[in-house]
Amino acid sequence: MTTLRVHRLALIGFGTVGQGLVEILQSKQAELAGRYGVQFHVVAVSDLLKGSLYHPNGLDLNALLNTVRRTGRLDDYPAVPGLQRGWDSLTTIRHSNAHTVVEVSWTDVQTGQPAISHVRAAFEAGKHAVLTNKGPVALAYRELADLAVARGVQFRFEGTVMSGTPTIRLARQALAGCDILEIKGILNGTTNFILTRMEEGHSYADALAEAQRLGYAEADPTADVEGWDAAGKAVILANVVMGGSLRVADVDRTGISGLTQEDVAAARAAGERWKLIARVWREGGAVRASVKPTRLPLSHPLAGVGGPINACTFTTDLLGEVTLVGPGAGRIETGYAVLGDLLDIVARP
Amino acid sequence: MTTLRVHRLALIGFGTVGQGLVEILQSKQAELAGRYGVQFHVVAVSDLLKGSLYHPNGLDLNALLNTVRRTGRLDDYPAVPGLQRGWDSLTTIRHSNAHTVVEVSWTDVQTGQPAISHVRAAFEAGKHAVLTNKGPVALAYRELADLAVARGVQFRFEGTVMSGTPTIRLARQALAGCDILEIKGILNGTTNFILTRMEEGHSYADALAEAQRLGYAEADPTADVEGWDAAGKAVILANVVMGGSLRVADVDRTGISGLTQEDVAAARAAGERWKLIARVWREGGAVRASVKPTRLPLSHPLAGVGGPINACTFTTDLLGEVTLVGPGAGRIETGYAVLGDLLDIVARP
Repeated sequence: MTTLRVHRLALIGFGTVGQGLVEILQSKQAELAGRYGVQFHVVAVSDLLKGSLYHPNGLDLNALLNTVRRTGRLDDYPAVPGLQRGWDSLTTIRHSNAHTVVEVSWTDVQTGQPAISHVRAAFEAGKHAVLTNKGPVALAYRELADLAVARGVQFRFEGTVMSGTPTIRLARQALAGCDILEIKGILNGTTNFILTRMEEGHSYADALAEAQRLGYAEADPTADVEGWDAAGKAVILANVVMGGSLRVADVDRTGISGLTQEDVAAARAAGERWKLIARVWREGGAVRASVKPTRLPLSHPLAGVGGPINACTFTTDLLGEVTLVGPGAGRIETGYAVLGDLLDIVARP
Repeated sequence: MTTLRVHRLALIGFGTVGQGLVEILQSKQAELAGRYGVQFHVVAVSDLLKGSLYHPNGLDLNALLNTVRRTGRLDDYPAVPGLQRGWDSLTTIRHSNAHTVVEVSWTDVQTGQPAISHVRAAFEAGKHAVLTNKGPVALAYRELADLAVARGVQFRFEGTVMSGTPTIRLARQALAGCDILEIKGILNGTTNFILTRMEEGHSYADALAEAQRLGYAEADPTADVEGWDAAGKAVILANVVMGGSLRVADVDRTGISGLTQEDVAAARAAGERWKLIARVWREGGAVRASVKPTRLPLSHPLAGVGGPINACTFTTDLLGEVTLVGPGAGRIETGYAVLGDLLDIVARP
């Protein structure tokens, strides 16, 4: 067995994803030590609403989860010598002894803030950063990636596309050496669920109401049903995987709210199925992207992907089409996205 | 740009896969240098029938391909100062200055030889090894993997399962941190092609004949249709990904030669589809494997995988089901399997 390596984390934000990650770390400590030779210490948690804790030797994960579950805040975390309370996010990023900042704060998808500032501060402090909010990557990938390279640190964001399903690691690492010519994906689970229900005979309105009841869709479903969420993810894949420099506004975007039961029936009669397809391709030296309801033949690898599942087909020069199918959301699934990125950072020093 | 790193290769065997790899290296030199900062030099090619070449500064890839295409042998490769001819495989492995031995020789799938001896010799000489023949991995994974660790070198064999589709890199690297609880795969393209044609109304005999005409099936199709090929791949996944210690004889194996058009019709009537499914799972502390024709509901992610395509579903603790779909054979596809492994070796020193 190799020596156990300690890797220290500061969590900025302690909502669903942050707590999901801590649950995973708690249940997997022995497995991570045995299989990967690494021990993750959560040295800091800083949340704008819940409070803030820092201990250079690491926080107790049980106490952390129990406290936040019981009180919704971190104030009741037991006092121990050396514990620092009340540091704001930037102080935590700059002055904690973390190797990696896990940025999972509540972030405005329009501005990418405060996550962009947090990631920038992490890199300037010589710390790696992992995040799961798509806003900062859709808005500022190039700037942040260049800064990470300049500071010799790592920037990871697997959870921004298809949650923990390792889409970005597949494209950048497992498919290394292939040229990716085109990407087609079902990148929004909510709309895929709605389309699957419409296929089963329900109206758009009924399917949307059911998605809202199940927690797949927000009260205001615009971001999902009008394709904004998928467009943000398409921009990430375009810029990260295909070297583009797109903004969300550059995506040719149509949502599913105009699709009728008649449209669905017409596709079925032709042996086809509607899917909201995010597509990224090269055209005249530029990378382009669209999000559009698209009729696929049933034999297409994306046609059989039903319910809230996500999928992505990479068309490559050497392998033709390679398709990855997996979950696109969820507390543990997105918490795992962070763990996968952390293990990758540890493995590629 | 980082400095260009030279990585030297010795190819043991120069058949379809070896030539496919050299074609890829030839066409991708600039891309590999620009994107990954690496330049691969083929310093040696040693083939039992075609002859053998070694030059410490690297062979000319154009001359290599032209010579073998024109004459079927390597004798006509132009004489240059420092060129060594006639080294056998073990001499090449031991005495060339290669960093990595690419083992793509013709190998007996029953004994795994001579590939097992070649890989062992490579490790003993302090060289990494990449291979694409499943025999050696199905037969001797544990011994070879332990030897590689002891000698501080890398052992890679992505091409043994689903050719270049990065199944093993997905499971071991991109899904790192997930516990893989079960694997279900369509790992043999020939039988999947036959089943797809039977689904379209053809008899087993007609579909097999067509597969033979298209070069998907051998004149003696036993290895494919009786499930031996899939069983070997199941053993690799069981031992490499799930920590098992199975042999091919341990796999509960049934082929597709007994399936009739009536069976196919009965499944269709029930909204299901026959697939030859390789399955690996844990049972009472042991890892078990089977290969069996299985009826899947059309909604299953593997049900829609038609023709000679392969696919693999990993059931994980943190993400549920993650499915990878891609090619399972081909000269360039398997050549790429080697390139992907080589880039992984270079990236993880």
